[in-house]
Order: sequence, then C-alpha cells, then structure tokens
Amino acid sequence: MAAAKKQIKLGMFLRPSGHHVAAWRHPDAAEDSDSNFQHLIDVARTAERGLFDLIFIADNVAMPHEDLETLTRVADVTRIDPFTVMAALAMVTKRIGLVVTGTTTYDEPYFVARKFASLDLVSGGRSGWNVVTSGVQMEAANFGRDFHPSKSDRYQRAREFVDVVRGLWDTWDEGALVRDKASGIFFDPSKVHVLNHRGEHFKVRGPLNTSPSPQGHPVIVESGSSEDGRDLAAETAEVVFTAQSTLAAAQEFYGDLHRRMAKYGRDPDSLKVMPGMLVTVGRTEQEAQDKHETLQALIHPSQGLTLLSKYMGYDLSGCDIDAPPPEVPANKLGLISSRSVQLTEMARRENLTVRQLYERVAGGRGHFSVVGTAAQVVDHMEEWVTTGASDGFNVMAPYLPGGLDDFVELVIPELQRRGLFRTAYEGRTLRDHLGLQKPVSRYAKAAAAVAAE
Amino acid sequence: MAAAKKQIKLGMFLRPSGHHVAAWRHPDAAEDSDSNFQHLIDVARTAERGLFDLIFIADNVAMPHEDLETLTRVADVTRIDPFTVMAALAMVTKRIGLVVTGTTTYDEPYFVARKFASLDLVSGGRSGWNVVTSGVQMEAANFGRDFHPSKSDRYQRAREFVDVVRGLWDTWDEGALVRDKASGIFFDPSKVHVLNHRGEHFKVRGPLNTSPSPQGHPVIVESGSSEDGRDLAAETAEVVFTAQSTLAAAQEFYGDLHRRMAKYGRDPDSLKVMPGMLVTVGRTEQEAQDKHETLQALIHPSQGLTLLSKYMGYDLSGCDIDAPPPEVPANKLGLISSRSVQLTEMARRENLTVRQLYERVAGGRGHFSVVGTAAQVVDHMEEWVTTGASDGFNVMAPYLPGGLDDFVELVIPELQRRGLFRTAYEGRTLRDHLGLQKPVSRYAKAAAAVAAE
Repeated sequence: MAAAKKQIKLGMFLRPSGHHVAAWRHPDAAEDSDSNFQHLIDVARTAERGLFDLIFIADNVAMPHEDLETLTRVADVTRIDPFTVMAALAMVTKRIGLVVTGTTTYDEPYFVARKFASLDLVSGGRSGWNVVTSGVQMEAANFGRDFHPSKSDRYQRAREFVDVVRGLWDTWDEGALVRDKASGIFFDPSKVHVLNHRGEHFKVRGPLNTSPSPQGHPVIVESGSSEDGRDLAAETAEVVFTAQSTLAAAQEFYGDLHRRMAKYGRDPDSLKVMPGMLVTVGRTEQEAQDKHETLQALIHPSQGLTLLSKYMGYDLSGCDIDAPPPEVPANKLGLISSRSVQLTEMARRENLTVRQLYERVAGGRGHFSVVGTAAQVVDHMEEWVTTGASDGFNVMAPYLPGGLDDFVELVIPELQRRGLFRTAYEGRTLRDHLGLQKPVSRYAKAAAAVAAE
Repeated sequence: MAAAKKQIKLGMFLRPSGHHVAAWRHPDAAEDSDSNFQHLIDVARTAERGLFDLIFIADNVAMPHEDLETLTRVADVTRIDPFTVMAALAMVTKRIGLVVTGTTTYDEPYFVARKFASLDLVSGGRSGWNVVTSGVQMEAANFGRDFHPSKSDRYQRAREFVDVVRGLWDTWDEGALVRDKASGIFFDPSKVHVLNHRGEHFKVRGPLNTSPSPQGHPVIVESGSSEDGRDLAAETAEVVFTAQSTLAAAQEFYGDLHRRMAKYGRDPDSLKVMPGMLVTVGRTEQEAQDKHETLQALIHPSQGLTLLSKYMGYDLSGCDIDAPPPEVPANKLGLISSRSVQLTEMARRENLTVRQLYERVAGGRGHFSVVGTAAQVVDHMEEWVTTGASDGFNVMAPYLPGGLDDFVELVIPELQRRGLFRTAYEGRTLRDHLGLQKPVSRYAKAAAAVAAE
C-alpha cells in the first residue's frame, strides 16, 4: 500500500474586498465589503464548504497612511473590527478555524488572553491568535504615543506578551471547576494559579477570569519574516503565515525556520508553515488569464503609481505610465531598498513599462501568485509541499466572492482527487484540523518535573 | 380616547448563573454557566421572545477577591468575555439590544470605539456600551498598575474617554463612502475627519478605521450612582442602570438626575433610567414564596457569612448564625459604612438572626426585590414608572433559565394586558426600542453653527 500523501493545510486569507488592489471595482464584487457583514458571512460559509482549515483576517488599528488623498481608491482602509467579525462568524459556521490578528504593541495581555479563550469557548475550540507587532507607524498616534517603538523593542515586548498570555491560559487546572451542587463548592482554589508575572514590559497578577477553553491554548499564529520575526516564530508559533514570491525563497525560509526551532528543542511537526498564495483559476488557461486581466484593467493609473512609489521608494506620480520607469532620482540613490532594486532590474530585463510594472505588484503584493487551471494551481501546491517549501497555503482570492467560489469549485476537487486534501472535516477543533497537540500547562509540566526527580 | 400609557423599557440583566448567590445550586440551573455558551444562547432567545429592549452583561477584568478561598462557592468568578458573548449573540438573535460593559480605566478609546461600532455593524444597530470606571481593586494588578487610581481620577479619565470615543464615531460623514466602481473612488477624503484629540489622559489622532454603524453612535449606558457618577451620567448617558432598594430612593435619584441634566441643556427624554429589579414570580403568592425559599435554603452558611462580612465591614466568620448579629468590634467602631449601620438597625428592629440578615442581601444585593404574583410585580412596576421613579427596569432573574422563563411567561403578558409594554418589536435598532434619537455628528453641528452665523 502506498504511503498516504502529506495533507495540505489551507487558510482562507480574508481581505474583505479581495486581495487585488482593484478587487472592489470588479463587476461581481461586493463594493461595500467595509460594512456589509452578510458578505463576510457568505464568504466564510463558502470557505467552510471548501473544508478550509481556517479563515484568517489581518488587522491594523489605524488607517494605513496619514495622507487620505493617497487612499481614496483603496477599499480596505475601513472595516469591521476583525475580532468582532470572528466572534459573530463562530455562530454561522461549525467547523472552520477562526484566526485573527491581535497586536502585542498596543493591546494588553489580560484582554488578549480573555478574548481569544472566549472565542475558543463560543466556537467550540476553533480560535487562533495571529500575534503581531504593529508595523504601521500610524497606529502609535491612536494610542497616545509620539513615536512608534523600534522593531527590537516591539519584538521583546511581543515575546513577553505571548509568555504572559500563555501563563494566563494555564490559570485553571483540569478539574479545578468542581461545580458540585450538593456540597456547594464551585471551584477548588488549590487548582487555580496566580500568575504573578513581573517582567520588563508587563506586570500581570492573574488569575484569568475566563474558564478553560476547548483547545486549552488557542493556536498561536505569527507572520513576521524578519530575523526577529523568525526567531520569535521558531520559539513560540504553531502556524506561520509568510510572503514568499518563489519556490526557492520559500524553501530557504522553511529550512531556516526548522533549523531555528531545533535551538528551542521543538519538533518540526509542531509548526505549520503556510505561505500566502494568490490564485486566479479558470476552467481553461485562457479563462484564468481573462479573469486576471479584467482586474488588471481596473487599476486606476493614480492607484498604480501610488502603489509603485511605495515599493520603489521614490515618487512616480505624473510619470508616463506607457514608458519605462524613470531613473532613480540622484537624491535617493543610496536609500533604495533591495525590493526597489529587484523591481528596477525586472523592468529592464523584461522591458516593462511603468504600467506593466505596477500590474506585477497589484495582486499578490509579494506573495506567490498563480494564474491558470486547477491542475496548474495544484501542480504548484504539490511541488511546494513535497519539496520542503511549505505545509500548506494561506489562499488569497483576487476578488470576492467570485475568486473564492472559483477556488472551492475548481481547485479543492483537484486537490482531493490527488489525495492531498480532506474530503470531510475529521476533527472538531482548529488543532484537530492542523494536527497540533494540545499544549500541556506550565504548572503540570513543573509538577511532572518535580515528580520525576 | 385615553392617552397612551407610558411604555416600560426592559433590560435583561444577564448574570450567567442568575442573580441569587446560590443560583447555580438550584436543581434546574445550568451549573456550568461559566463556560456553557449554549446556555447563554438559550437565555438570550428567551429574552427576545419576551420582547425585552436589551440584554445587558456586566464585567470585571479580574477575579473579585484576592483570597480565592473566600470565592470557592461563587459561580460567576470566571466567565466568557462579555463582549465576545455579545458579538456571537448578535447572530442568534434578531431584534434585541446588546449592551455590554467596557472599562474606561484600563482599555483604550480607539479599541472601544472600534469594537462597539463593529458590534453595531454586525447586529444591524443593536449595540450599547456600558461605560464604567473599574471599581474592583484587583483589576489594577492585571494591567501593570501598583495602585488602583482614585475615584476622581477615574471619573476624569472616563469623561475624556467618552468624548474621544464619540469623536471617533464621527469620523465618517454621511456620504463619505462613495464606493463608485465606475470612477474608482472609494471614499471622499473631504468628508473624513481626523480627530487629533490631545487631552489630559489621551492623545488619539484618528480617523477611526471602522465604517459608520447603523446607529451612528452605539447607545451610551452608565451605572454609577455616586456624585461623580450622577454628573457624568447627566452629561453623557442615554441609559442609566442603578441599584435603588426603595421607591422613595428611586424617586430621589430620578429627580436628581433630571435636575443635573438641565445644567447640560439636555432633554429629559434623552435619558432612560432603568433600576435593577430582582423578580421572583409565581402563579400564586405561595408559589413565588416557595421559589424564593428554595434558593434561600441553598445559601451555604460560610457563603452567607462572607457576603455579610463584606457588607457589614467586619469579620463574622465563626459566629452563631441562629443568634442575632454580634456587636461591632471596638476597633471598627468609627469605620462602619452607612450600609452596615442600616443592616444592624434592621436586624435589631425586626429581631433577625445572622442567617436571616444574610438572606436579605443574598438575592438583590441592594436592588429592589419583589417576590409575588405577576399582578403584584406589575403593580410595583407601574407605580415606579408613573410616580417619577424610573422609565423601566433592568430585570434580574434569581436563577437561570427558570427565573427568566417565569418572567416571560407570567409578567410580560400582564404588562401587555395593562398596555404598559409592546406586543411586538416596532423598530430595528436599540435606539428605536428605547425611543432615543440618533446623535448628530459634532462636525455636522459645528458646520450648522457656522452656517447659522
């Protein structure tokens, strides 16, 4: 009998309008995805019909830019608070995991521990916390700070934040809640732990006043890919979302993360790596290409130039979009990012106009992007998971709901046909879907260590 | 034709186990109300069947006492985060308002503005924010503080917090979100407001990255009854919950609040006063009395003594519960609260034992309490709303689900029969139910003032 194939893990990376910058202008798109909650319900139910492991919503607690003029064509500057969305989606879905971002830079560990445990309780064990350090400068000004903290400060705070949250989740031992009507004893205080954390960034006494949740610990998800981000993930993450534009880059990342995990004595199976993947799928290659071009044609030149200026590191407004990109201005020469250099070289090599160049970044924003038939999409997926590049994908629909409908209708059956994906949910919790162990409480570990001496 | 009677407003004050200290021990009670979300769904649906204006959940972000031993018989020390509960309940109810506590002492205005606007979006306009200053000393230690801030500091911070939240809710003018697929313009930046708040306690730039919600502003609810609390409510609240144990006290409070409102130029109709009311109802007086006594008999003496010690201000543990209460210890004589003096006098006047005394505080905890038939209960309600004591009630079920089932089955029809309560929801939003206007944005007001000059 042939060995079972490695099962692909799938996240549905829910950007309310879809991932292409012009998604909301698509004739079939919900243009009011910023406030139309029924749209999010429909999309979540489609993802569950497609047996996705999880839905994921990213978040920023600010508008993405100080200058509102540059954002007037962008759909996702305003949105329903992702955590509130997930708590509500828990009621209209049954099995799919619910992963949402919570910032360690501006929120408090007690609040975060409580709300993710509570999402786990209301959803029957489907909660996941995407741990982020706030990357958007604009957030600082909404939380009373004059300056955004440095990256190194943010990561130190994040590490301590995760430790405190996990400690709070360990408050109630198994069996602590006795709830014995006859004796009138509701809980056994000898099985409740006071955290008494006193660290560099946080002082948190505890205990947590939320009961143990089905998963014990909601799943810890991270998405930083910098040095600091990789280290934190290797130490603490159970799922990593990442942007990798090529197979080779993804393999490097995957290998590096597992090497770093060894330092912390962690089993590689306890971490699932799921790069983003923008999928535009059709019944034929031509149909997929047409779908892709419909969206590309909807990019307004001013939006394209704003986007490209951001990635290039200098202002391109007013330039001829049907000519090659202008030279880097003399005063920017030493200040250009490696990303900008790559784009300039690509334009030269492939003889691209400015328009063609901004079209390259308008969909996947640095994530791996595929336009093709289901067989072509799955060829890539299979290659990635069998050559040490990933354990699955955080699937990005170019627009919604159509882009996700296509994926569920065309790609999921092809994955199933090849034995790479479930044909029904086997488990109940997000940990079940991902094959992740329920963590042992720090207090049970300590007690076991004492007993073994 | 007779003038229509004043319509009574009803909140369902949801304490997961019920309001009586021994509620969870009742044979029909859900003993796992700390973590059983289906129980909360069932209760919310019953309240909606009863056409209540709103469900309300109180909250503390800490255990209520440092010494866990004193809490072992208490059911509500641990619970599902009330905000998460409400976001989920929005999906399993259709019309009932959803009011939940958010602390101004330890949370951030940007988070609070976002989440209550989002609850309003997912629920179709049913969100209300119960503004509190944290009263539990224990909370400070969960948020990095060595000391709980003073009452006056907390109220100053609360006033500024509410102002910032309302300012953020005014971010998007009507018509700001253009969403025009043809031109590609998603929003009009001239109709978006940057708050730029810089006050004593908060610096918050804005704009809010959540779209306008159906109610514009979720309903502002408050529950402080101190001098500071009354002033803040008179200035900013649209609903006030309060604990008043007698009709006379409620009339004093109601009148005082309306006098204070005049200082702020507010119409008395823009504030609804809803005192708590613990209702134990039966088909006969005897049946109601039996229900009450079933619960009273379930109070464990140690729990009764802990509760009474808290209210009396000195330790009663170990005393004879079938004797009159012991004298105030000499070293506490000058330190006794007016509450404690009242209880001592009541015990002397009515010749009560310690047990009888703790039974008096075990249900309503200072709220008006009625045990009787539906007609008797409604007699009290009608008296209160027709003699300037309240606009309605925050109904407290002694235990759940039975205590609420009784109320919906017996009291609601009696209220309807007397023309004091709706027979169907007429409106869609919480403001509709309560008869509260949608607030005008501060920017629209300012523009109107300029235009009028």
